[in-house]
Amino acid sequence: MDDRLKKQLDFILEIDKEKNIFRQTHLSGGGRAEDDAEHAWHMAIMAWLLKDYANEPVDVARVMMMCLIHDIVEIDAGDTYAYDPEALKTQQAREDAAKERIFSLLPEDQRAELIALFDEFEAAQTPEAKFAHSLDNLQPLLLNNSNDGADWKAHGVTAKQVWGRQRNTQLGSETLFEVTEGIIREQIRKGNLPEE
Amino acid sequence: MDDRLKKQLDFILEIDKEKNIFRQTHLSGGGRAEDDAEHAWHMAIMAWLLKDYANEPVDVARVMMMCLIHDIVEIDAGDTYAYDPEALKTQQAREDAAKERIFSLLPEDQRAELIALFDEFEAAQTPEAKFAHSLDNLQPLLLNNSNDGADWKAHGVTAKQVWGRQRNTQLGSETLFEVTEGIIREQIRKGNLPEE
Repeated sequence: MDDRLKKQLDFILEIDKEKNIFRQTHLSGGGRAEDDAEHAWHMAIMAWLLKDYANEPVDVARVMMMCLIHDIVEIDAGDTYAYDPEALKTQQAREDAAKERIFSLLPEDQRAELIALFDEFEAAQTPEAKFAHSLDNLQPLLLNNSNDGADWKAHGVTAKQVWGRQRNTQLGSETLFEVTEGIIREQIRKGNLPEE
Repeated sequence: MDDRLKKQLDFILEIDKEKNIFRQTHLSGGGRAEDDAEHAWHMAIMAWLLKDYANEPVDVARVMMMCLIHDIVEIDAGDTYAYDPEALKTQQAREDAAKERIFSLLPEDQRAELIALFDEFEAAQTPEAKFAHSLDNLQPLLLNNSNDGADWKAHGVTAKQVWGRQRNTQLGSETLFEVTEGIIREQIRKGNLPEE
């Protein structure tokens, strides 16, 4: 087997570990915690189905790949809960080191390509990256909504915090932000999410 | 919310159940059984990284989406193990009913689009579908290879059966079929896979 293919297969085997990184979100039906690979799979299908709601036209393959790889650094850095201020302080350094280690398993051109895609997602400036962030926000919201806000309740999260976190959904998709607003208002009304 | 978006979100929530469909393959490192969503996530990333090894040029977005949705019918029909002859007899009827129910949650145009993609994968005639089958075969082989053939041992699978199952990898990618051959021969040599 040539060196290029061997490197690609090494990377492919390495990222299998993402299936062991669990999130704070739980599956619909009050199920177990969701893992990063499942979250990314769900987002990539959403990208295809919902692409017409992006504020600007997007290259759907690039959005899908961004969704699929955006949490790979968590293999080393772990999942950082969006409402954990202490963990958020060290997130960047942990994820930068992970990014270098994991993507460097690939041949140089694909290492550069995937790091560029990963960085593009993080920077959230292009139409594709902005839309991918809308999906990254909406996907757990749909699950949590289906579970009567159980994940928020478990962490004592307030509507104010959720609004802050979900704000950038609007940058990628006005339509999906309307869905977000509807869900947050409904969960407040149901008493599953305190205002502050 | 308009009817189209509501249908899309209903489908998106419904397919969350795919995360509860477990396969016979186990995660690397001798981990737990893999679920369908994780398997599909892995295949879609492989599609992007390995697309140059497809025998014919492929539209990578279509391959990725095919990979992402190819097991959705198992939400109703369950996972059918590739080496279980009894389950294989009823697989088609179970999966056809599931396909109608689940994809019909979508707006009509997307229902038709996803059923067409699903059927294209099943028919395995186009370059995209043939390559997606190569990935569907190779992905569990890589995990099982990393686990010294534990999944084959658990089911008493022989090399003859594996060759039969892996034959169509060659139709999608000669290069990936060479990888397959190398893995099977190595596992036979190690005593993890009896010849017959």
